[in-house]
Amino acid sequence: MPNPSIDIAGAAKAHDDLRAKGPLVHNITNYVVMTISANVLLALGASPAMVHAVEEAEDFTAISSSLVVNIGTLSPHWVEAMRRSAKKAVAQGKNWVLDPVGCGATPYRTGVAVELAGLKPAIIRGNASEILSLAGAAGAGGKGVDSTASSDAALAAAASLAKGTGAVVAVTGATDYATDGTTIFAVEGGDPMMPLSTGLGCALSAIVAAFAAVRPPLEAAAYGLAVYGAAGKEAASRCRGPGHLPAELCDALHLMDAATLARRSKISAKEFA
Amino acid sequence: MPNPSIDIAGAAKAHDDLRAKGPLVHNITNYVVMTISANVLLALGASPAMVHAVEEAEDFTAISSSLVVNIGTLSPHWVEAMRRSAKKAVAQGKNWVLDPVGCGATPYRTGVAVELAGLKPAIIRGNASEILSLAGAAGAGGKGVDSTASSDAALAAAASLAKGTGAVVAVTGATDYATDGTTIFAVEGGDPMMPLSTGLGCALSAIVAAFAAVRPPLEAAAYGLAVYGAAGKEAASRCRGPGHLPAELCDALHLMDAATLARRSKISAKEFA
Amino acid sequence: MPNPSIDIAGAAKAHDDLRAKGPLVHNITNYVVMTISANVLLALGASPAMVHAVEEAEDFTAISSSLVVNIGTLSPHWVEAMRRSAKKAVAQGKNWVLDPVGCGATPYRTGVAVELAGLKPAIIRGNASEILSLAGAAGAGGKGVDSTASSDAALAAAASLAKGTGAVVAVTGATDYATDGTTIFAVEGGDPMMPLSTGLGCALSAIVAAFAAVRPPLEAAAYGLAVYGAAGKEAASRCRGPGHLPAELCDALHLMDAATLARRSKISAKEFA
Repeated sequence: MPNPSIDIAGAAKAHDDLRAKGPLVHNITNYVVMTISANVLLALGASPAMVHAVEEAEDFTAISSSLVVNIGTLSPHWVEAMRRSAKKAVAQGKNWVLDPVGCGATPYRTGVAVELAGLKPAIIRGNASEILSLAGAAGAGGKGVDSTASSDAALAAAASLAKGTGAVVAVTGATDYATDGTTIFAVEGGDPMMPLSTGLGCALSAIVAAFAAVRPPLEAAAYGLAVYGAAGKEAASRCRGPGHLPAELCDALHLMDAATLARRSKISAKEFA
Repeated sequence: MPNPSIDIAGAAKAHDDLRAKGPLVHNITNYVVMTISANVLLALGASPAMVHAVEEAEDFTAISSSLVVNIGTLSPHWVEAMRRSAKKAVAQGKNWVLDPVGCGATPYRTGVAVELAGLKPAIIRGNASEILSLAGAAGAGGKGVDSTASSDAALAAAASLAKGTGAVVAVTGATDYATDGTTIFAVEGGDPMMPLSTGLGCALSAIVAAFAAVRPPLEAAAYGLAVYGAAGKEAASRCRGPGHLPAELCDALHLMDAATLARRSKISAKEFA
Repeated sequence: MPNPSIDIAGAAKAHDDLRAKGPLVHNITNYVVMTISANVLLALGASPAMVHAVEEAEDFTAISSSLVVNIGTLSPHWVEAMRRSAKKAVAQGKNWVLDPVGCGATPYRTGVAVELAGLKPAIIRGNASEILSLAGAAGAGGKGVDSTASSDAALAAAASLAKGTGAVVAVTGATDYATDGTTIFAVEGGDPMMPLSTGLGCALSAIVAAFAAVRPPLEAAAYGLAVYGAAGKEAASRCRGPGHLPAELCDALHLMDAATLARRSKISAKEFA
């Protein structure tokens, strides 16, 4: 049976708890999205920090509430910090989120994504192509990179990847999904304009990490998708192009309340067939 | 004779083709401008990616439509990736764009710019000081760094640099110019407020690289200057200061059409005297 | 006796002088805040550059008017450039500003902050926690990290740190303070929304560095705080959330005049008891 408590009311409650806690979220992320990631986390009610040096990454994970690792602009000394921080988070029982940006684009990138997926992330968040590629490369039944991947194909790969890694997998697109391999939550919200502003997917991974500081992985993924999707839909309604979308998204997150969340997003649960 | 087909109507057609193709543009660029570069490329209709590790840079160039190399915040391991990706692009017959940011400011920076200018860029895009410095350092007849350089002096240096390197050279300022050393296209547009928002020149280099995925170098440079200049002029007309200019620029690129382009920009061809 | 010439009229005059000079400010700063730092400097009337490679950092400091060093996303090769540039600035009699971001969070970070504080910065700018931590770690009488630090505790630590290092210390919070260990200037302005937009404190350190190109350290710190605080207050009055705050802040800096400065900020001097 799907968990009946994972719904929009639960998302609003989780957001309240997040605001009350103000979790410190450790980001090891790519250069392009650092600013927007920090800004959406602040607007959400979390406290972001970007720390990547191997000399201090583990120590910083140790004082943080959760961690997000994003391989967008990876290089070897950053990857070493990612490994160490991921292991530290797991050792301390903290949730960490993997964003396998561009998995499948180059052998180096795919190899790093597969290695990190093996370090017990609580949640993996990517687009359909990335999840298909990672599932395939990790031997979990996907079909490799496919940028025109259908939602169904990505969903099957997501479930397979979830079972193979033990992580909750969140696949984002026209409709977003979160699955632990058994239950699927479909989350509606967002806007077709969002992919036209850089880093909004990466920033969502940071949002999910913030929720993972106050909720278990499946709830955190569903709630992060819902709150972000609602904010994105609200933000896009105020824009005539993608230029002001990041700023409007931050305002929408800052001003988010239960009524707006219920109006702008929807969470539906179903079992795999 | 100037190429009569390089005009505003041609720019509008090239933009249509660019939007239809959605070229993947590989950026090895500086930290300050990564976000705005990605955002203007998305707003234009291209697909940006920032990839700099030597472990994967060449592989990424191989799957991209074009490449832009910008030395704004260079360091040795980034320069090695720039070299490799530039060579890969040339080997595959793809156009790559060099932005020699701050050439002339330090010996290290000038040396890197000169080396990269020797790796067969299709287009070199810089301000008057940078082009004068690069032309001079490359032994192509310029007069060194001169931040108050006149347009005439920069034009002569640009032509000399174009002949010496085989690249089309685009010099930007109050009026922008693109030249292959024989023909000059003067492009009007833009706004004096643009230099007050960081990275808008660097982002233009990325725009030119996107056009270089659908047109030969001289056309790509002229069309990139024209579309960006029109968008800049449109954007500035909506701003009371530089703060919202990047967002308005993205909206203007997203909404650009042939009528706005013709109203906001102008391309004129002339021979060198 | 407090210096009676450090007042709002003096801040307006210093801003005029800054705009007339257009000082080149060398930034070795963190990835998250590079763009906003560059944009506020441009809006203020300064000319920013971000240069971090050890191959050229000293050379760049040599042609700059002042320097800001910010350890937000430090790593060893960046720290080496920070050392060299700091020493070059001191050797040339130029003012440099240290922003000890996150001092106290990890042993590596604290160690770097203490080392840099020993390299004769003209000004150290941080929040209460950072100043308390740095003062404590530098053996200057602080009490370690305390994110709920009271202003009084931070002020005593600031004075102690100023006496120990010879730097003017600027502590920012609800009210901002600048002290040389003997005199304190309290500066009012800003808005509670400012900490909800990433990097606005780091960008203030860059602003202070720009003023340090046209005024001695204590004046530079007080004037930077005042002009930035006035702009922040003006900007926040136009925002319903933190999303557009960076853009509005740039507009406010760009449009700042003596009347707005006097209306939006206040400088008060007092002796330590």
